[in-house]
Amino acid sequence: MNQLKSEQIEMQKPFPSSRKVYVRGTREDIKVPFREIKLSDTETDGVTTENLPIRVYDTSGPYTDEAVVLDVHKGIERIRTPWIEERNDTEVYIGRSLQPEDNGEKELVLYNHSFRHEIRKAKVGKRVTQMFYAKQGVITPEMEFIAIRENIDVETIREEVASGRAIIPANINHPEAEPMIIGEKFHVKVNANIGNSAVSSSIEKEVEKMTWATHWGADNIMDLSTGKNIHATREFIIRNAPVPVGTVPIYQALEKVNGVAEDLTWEIFRDTLIEQAEQGVDYFTIHAGILLRYIHLTVERITGIVSRGGSIMAQWCLSHHKENFLYEHFSDICKILNQYDIAISLGDALRPGSIADANDKAQFAELETLGELTNIAWEHDVQVMVEGPGHVPLHKLKENVELEQTLCKGAPFYTLGPLTTDIAPGYDHITSAIGAAVIGMHGTAMLCYVTPKEHLGLPNRDDVKEGVIAYKIAAHAADLAKGHPNAQVRDDALSKARFEFRWYDQFNLSLDPERARMYHDETLPAEAAKVAHFCSMCGPKFCSMRISHDLRKDMFTESEINEGLQRKAHEFTEKGSQLYL
Amino acid sequence: MNQLKSEQIEMQKPFPSSRKVYVRGTREDIKVPFREIKLSDTETDGVTTENLPIRVYDTSGPYTDEAVVLDVHKGIERIRTPWIEERNDTEVYIGRSLQPEDNGEKELVLYNHSFRHEIRKAKVGKRVTQMFYAKQGVITPEMEFIAIRENIDVETIREEVASGRAIIPANINHPEAEPMIIGEKFHVKVNANIGNSAVSSSIEKEVEKMTWATHWGADNIMDLSTGKNIHATREFIIRNAPVPVGTVPIYQALEKVNGVAEDLTWEIFRDTLIEQAEQGVDYFTIHAGILLRYIHLTVERITGIVSRGGSIMAQWCLSHHKENFLYEHFSDICKILNQYDIAISLGDALRPGSIADANDKAQFAELETLGELTNIAWEHDVQVMVEGPGHVPLHKLKENVELEQTLCKGAPFYTLGPLTTDIAPGYDHITSAIGAAVIGMHGTAMLCYVTPKEHLGLPNRDDVKEGVIAYKIAAHAADLAKGHPNAQVRDDALSKARFEFRWYDQFNLSLDPERARMYHDETLPAEAAKVAHFCSMCGPKFCSMRISHDLRKDMFTESEINEGLQRKAHEFTEKGSQLYL
Repeated sequence: MNQLKSEQIEMQKPFPSSRKVYVRGTREDIKVPFREIKLSDTETDGVTTENLPIRVYDTSGPYTDEAVVLDVHKGIERIRTPWIEERNDTEVYIGRSLQPEDNGEKELVLYNHSFRHEIRKAKVGKRVTQMFYAKQGVITPEMEFIAIRENIDVETIREEVASGRAIIPANINHPEAEPMIIGEKFHVKVNANIGNSAVSSSIEKEVEKMTWATHWGADNIMDLSTGKNIHATREFIIRNAPVPVGTVPIYQALEKVNGVAEDLTWEIFRDTLIEQAEQGVDYFTIHAGILLRYIHLTVERITGIVSRGGSIMAQWCLSHHKENFLYEHFSDICKILNQYDIAISLGDALRPGSIADANDKAQFAELETLGELTNIAWEHDVQVMVEGPGHVPLHKLKENVELEQTLCKGAPFYTLGPLTTDIAPGYDHITSAIGAAVIGMHGTAMLCYVTPKEHLGLPNRDDVKEGVIAYKIAAHAADLAKGHPNAQVRDDALSKARFEFRWYDQFNLSLDPERARMYHDETLPAEAAKVAHFCSMCGPKFCSMRISHDLRKDMFTESEINEGLQRKAHEFTEKGSQLYL
Repeated sequence: MNQLKSEQIEMQKPFPSSRKVYVRGTREDIKVPFREIKLSDTETDGVTTENLPIRVYDTSGPYTDEAVVLDVHKGIERIRTPWIEERNDTEVYIGRSLQPEDNGEKELVLYNHSFRHEIRKAKVGKRVTQMFYAKQGVITPEMEFIAIRENIDVETIREEVASGRAIIPANINHPEAEPMIIGEKFHVKVNANIGNSAVSSSIEKEVEKMTWATHWGADNIMDLSTGKNIHATREFIIRNAPVPVGTVPIYQALEKVNGVAEDLTWEIFRDTLIEQAEQGVDYFTIHAGILLRYIHLTVERITGIVSRGGSIMAQWCLSHHKENFLYEHFSDICKILNQYDIAISLGDALRPGSIADANDKAQFAELETLGELTNIAWEHDVQVMVEGPGHVPLHKLKENVELEQTLCKGAPFYTLGPLTTDIAPGYDHITSAIGAAVIGMHGTAMLCYVTPKEHLGLPNRDDVKEGVIAYKIAAHAADLAKGHPNAQVRDDALSKARFEFRWYDQFNLSLDPERARMYHDETLPAEAAKVAHFCSMCGPKFCSMRISHDLRKDMFTESEINEGLQRKAHEFTEKGSQLYL
């Protein structure tokens, strides 16, 4: 029996001057979390005005709730269990038994834990997806939770899910996750990829990355592990994850055949889907759109096929000279997924890996097939989102969204970046945050983050944070551009604090209070500087904002200005109206 | 006599695998610098194919030329002196004598140096600007230099300068600067602000920041010093700067009146213009567009007036109840500037300092006046660019460019960011690189960088680098989107290197070779990993690019595929054509 070294997992602490609050829905067990940021008063010439606290969308789960006792071996609270049980459309069953190869071992490897996980699936003949209920006109507790979270009416939530324009990734075996929605009408979401690889990391590090990524604002995480202990790593992540968890099941399936793509079969893949469905994975990336006839379209590319799943399937197709089995069994896949309410993320196996390859025939041929597959999923009431590029220059971004919206009938678009240039490895969180913000503005629903290590190595904790924050910026910039009703409140509160020299409020309202304060203190560490009406950028004499404040006091009224202008005008006339001699 | 501690100034070294090359023009002394990056060969199945070296635009000046001996006390080569002399429109004269207040002192402060600086101005009745010559149909050596640098024909350069759609900032007293152009048809340029403040820095640090910023790709620097030794700091910067240097003269003028805006006069400002003109400042930011009647438009703003120059002028206008003296004397200013060929950067004193204030009445009222001033400058053959915001959400960016282009008749737009959200102090190089890339795509000619310290403190060396690189990314993304003929070459070369696992070439082609290599080596430090056909992201088994390579070898021809598909089609028919059962 292995034991997770939980003392090696650093737990997150609440943000400064923030507390967790819950907004109750129509029933007691709908408790929607927000982070409430307390602000100090405005003091103007001896008059004190209160600044109301600001509530912001909170993805950090119980880790920032000081009232909750956490134990990584028990997992977090299973908040959705009563809702799932009440629907009376699922049953508990004895799941698939763990196989040594699930963890890449020759013998069974077990980890000590006390998870309260009972495996469920749909009763015979039932479809248990949020889409199914939405289509029936039923408003689920999940939808109500989201309506409060997004500040958007619940009927809109239901309609968007029913039409397929939004998804709620919510496997009935992951009742720990706080419901969230991915769709154009809502906050643009951010996904953070984590996971070990054959050369690096541990279960402890990956669990920590999950809590760390959601602490900084990741709305989803994907566990892309490809090394040892894939099953065990995922188990600990899911049981402790307050956000939906996605995977790419073909990665684990390939491990089970020792990395030989040709040896993959539908049966091995199917078994992996069940394994992960029972653990509670909320969405699967499935590369069913790469067809045999599309592969040769990549021959002239500069960077060929850069999707891992895509290259695995291409290798399989070519070596067998057969059509992609994920495509051929797509209906079978949907029939499994609607038993657990697992969403599909249609993988873009042929996404461009360089500026040169953007928007090419291969990419758009696959997108057409993804549109076809979207329809099939919907027939099975399976929720779908569609993955997008990759590397795309700024002027070709809009075409991607428009084509996806047309071919996939409005299914949510979920893009990786895109990177707007290839020339800055080491800074690809920035090259891609640019593309992400713009494609978000055009309607992309979720952005898969890119860390500074992209193309170079496996991200560590710091890289995860840099990636998540760059993407929270991109998502928020897109929310502002789309006019999401909640978005500008925080900008306005921070800017007001800035203008009023409420330094602590400025730090606390920012995406990274610690860093903002640290940067300020580098040049002006004294406590007194945090109430000073200037900073080190201009020093005390030149502060434009202080001058601007002083001006307000002296500001002329409209009539005084008019009077002054008339006098001026009179002077000009006397001088012969020649302003420029 | 003070002595600069030149041993404290770290000089830049050439980039790895790069050498400085010069392309000669029609005359011997037109030597246009490029950085040539040497690439290794492609090895495929024992066949070796050469990869030609790549030449990239190079702003780093002699500091990366190993053949040049540098001495900060002598300054760099005065490459434009023969061109200026040949035009025979200027004369050497004894300039204004240094005053104690030029360095913020009560007594004269002198620094040891051996600069070969002779002060010049136009002969009586002459206008010596590049715009003047362009209008006369004359192609100057500066224009030819730029044509080679931009890979754009010289007649286009002349036309763009003549029409005012582009500027060549090139004070005759700064012959050290390598000519460069700012205009929509050319590479999007990046400006880096440096300069001390009352609470921080030294001359040595500022000179180093200049060489450092240009090393990483800054096309211009602005010296915004507001502390002591403003004159001496600027002298050492200009004599050693291979790029144009801009300033905001009102900052120094205010120092001369001890920070009391009301005490500013046209005479003090005029004297400061002459002082800086003689030193060789290439462009002045002048806040002549903020008029008395616009000031009250800022009362309801969240962040009032955030431009330092703007708030100084607003204070002056209101306390005297008079129109802005920079506006009233604008023609006088132009008459000075065309004697030295100093360009004007029309300051946007009323730029928004928050998302809430973007594109408001105050901002656009001033822009209209900037259009009026642009015309006046052009009448005097003075080159003009127009400054823009600031803080602007993504969906309001385009309106800024369009309005500027209309009101200012196509004069180059020069924006600060813009920041696309207010909520990320500490990361404003990212919030603003997003806006910068997009506004660059829409036609903005130069981007003023924002460092991670923006709003919080004075940037140090590391912050300057982060800011410059974020902005090189934004500018390059915009170049790609605009289709600049030189832009995609580097992306393609890097992507090809990436796909072929030529790790060193990938590092060396990147904006920051050191960081790219460091990030790679964090997980795979062994020398052997730099020729390995995988990286730590996926490990050896899962590398999609390796698989993609292997596939190419096995790739079927078109006819083989068709044959395969026919067989497939036959099978489907046999099964009754039911793909999805």
